[in-house]
Amino acid sequence: MPIACVNAGNATIESDELSVEEPLEIRVGIPRDGRLVRLSIAVTMRTPGADVELAAGFLFTEGIIRHENEIADIRTTAFNIVLATLEPTARVDPARFDRHSFVSSSCGVCGKRSIAAVFALKRHVLQRGAPRIEAKIIQGLSQTQRAAQTTFERTGGLHAAALFDPAGRLLSLYEDVGRHNALDKLIGSELRAGRVPLEDKLLLLSGRASFELIQKAAMAGIPVVAAVGAPSSLAVSLARQSAMTLLGFVRDGRFNVYADAGRLMEAPAELFSMTAGAFSRANR
Amino acid sequence: MPIACVNAGNATIESDELSVEEPLEIRVGIPRDGRLVRLSIAVTMRTPGADVELAAGFLFTEGIIRHENEIADIRTTAFNIVLATLEPTARVDPARFDRHSFVSSSCGVCGKRSIAAVFALKRHVLQRGAPRIEAKIIQGLSQTQRAAQTTFERTGGLHAAALFDPAGRLLSLYEDVGRHNALDKLIGSELRAGRVPLEDKLLLLSGRASFELIQKAAMAGIPVVAAVGAPSSLAVSLARQSAMTLLGFVRDGRFNVYADAGRLMEAPAELFSMTAGAFSRANR
Repeated sequence: MPIACVNAGNATIESDELSVEEPLEIRVGIPRDGRLVRLSIAVTMRTPGADVELAAGFLFTEGIIRHENEIADIRTTAFNIVLATLEPTARVDPARFDRHSFVSSSCGVCGKRSIAAVFALKRHVLQRGAPRIEAKIIQGLSQTQRAAQTTFERTGGLHAAALFDPAGRLLSLYEDVGRHNALDKLIGSELRAGRVPLEDKLLLLSGRASFELIQKAAMAGIPVVAAVGAPSSLAVSLARQSAMTLLGFVRDGRFNVYADAGRLMEAPAELFSMTAGAFSRANR
Repeated sequence: MPIACVNAGNATIESDELSVEEPLEIRVGIPRDGRLVRLSIAVTMRTPGADVELAAGFLFTEGIIRHENEIADIRTTAFNIVLATLEPTARVDPARFDRHSFVSSSCGVCGKRSIAAVFALKRHVLQRGAPRIEAKIIQGLSQTQRAAQTTFERTGGLHAAALFDPAGRLLSLYEDVGRHNALDKLIGSELRAGRVPLEDKLLLLSGRASFELIQKAAMAGIPVVAAVGAPSSLAVSLARQSAMTLLGFVRDGRFNVYADAGRLMEAPAELFSMTAGAFSRANR
């Protein structure tokens, strides 16, 4: 698309590629009394592509389905609409269809409740101390991701979520205008391949680590999350209580450890208690 | 909070300040048959502070209320809960309580429909060519904002929305872990002061410009939006059809013009048609 670039008073016409943003409606079909009840459960503004993965990931990370085999069929049924037909055996809780219900209750909301809601839904308990990761592997993740994230270089407008093995090899990468969508696409893709929980994997997020992203990673059983940006307070609390290793500012050869240093090979003993026990007890 | 900083193999214990993230529940009270019907309409993960402004801004930018005088009373009623009691004269459409309804319909969703939904709700039509802005004013916005955005410097984790007058003077600035929350706080604050529509103001966004942010700016009648990051395709479409001037990559003394160059004093004539008419006609 032609745009104008204004630099120190001079305007030049240049070509610019925009990140595409379009709504996607996610519907579920529930078998009931011999027919299919269709419900619209969410509309998300996303970058088109991997729509089925996005929908599958959303259903799983938001706790609407608990296992990939609860999806009988999932497909694009119309422009910008994905329908997931559930198995009759899927025990779907209609309350989970309200996206806000993750943190809402009739008697008030708070961070502790938000964390408790994730614990009530997630099925995987992370194993402390596994996998074991070298600091130099972490330090190389960001560069590997940027090399693979081609659209970002062109538009500057896409978030990325990337999955690595403990040796730092890139396994999968998804991009989207919404950071939660990029992660849902990644997790949905792994879910459909039968590889969730992602027990021995590393997740790199191109931006900041919010509660919502850590929630999704926890639902998928990811033990190590590295963010290029800063984490929020509630993201750190959830990671510590989930025994998830959370790293922030992973760039330029350095990173900060916010939760569970126990998976880092070279971590000094004092880090273990500092990023796990103490905070965790205080926040339960 | 103490964290570990790992740099080239050396781990040091450092103090780190986190951006606070907590849920906020927004409720409305609707007078009906002599009593007050209370409904929970949204839970958003936000940085505590300016909660009443956030709730008021959300109600207005999402089209749930159409004017500030439809709010009879708005206050924090419990921890992390704001209740807005509406006037009996407020004509509230229950369909607007579903946040997803902005872009959803029974017969499919698409970007054109999302834009049409904003046009159906917004009450202000922007006046072309006003206010007139100098390029050097735009080029100075980012630096002024960063100087004022103190929390970001400490945590690296907050988005900001800042309001300027046409001379580049900072009028207001709000920060939040969520970019939509920072903008809702800003607009809510102006709404409560009776200054909406913001017809002669400039808005600077610290990050990327998504559809949702341009929607909120359009609802508030803001004529010029400058983003430090990239805009999305749908954000550009909505801005062009709204006759809103949309600038991206506003940093380091330069910026790109994506929509309606007509408010830029020094803009060459070819920019006018390029960023307004042609694209607009093609996308209506």
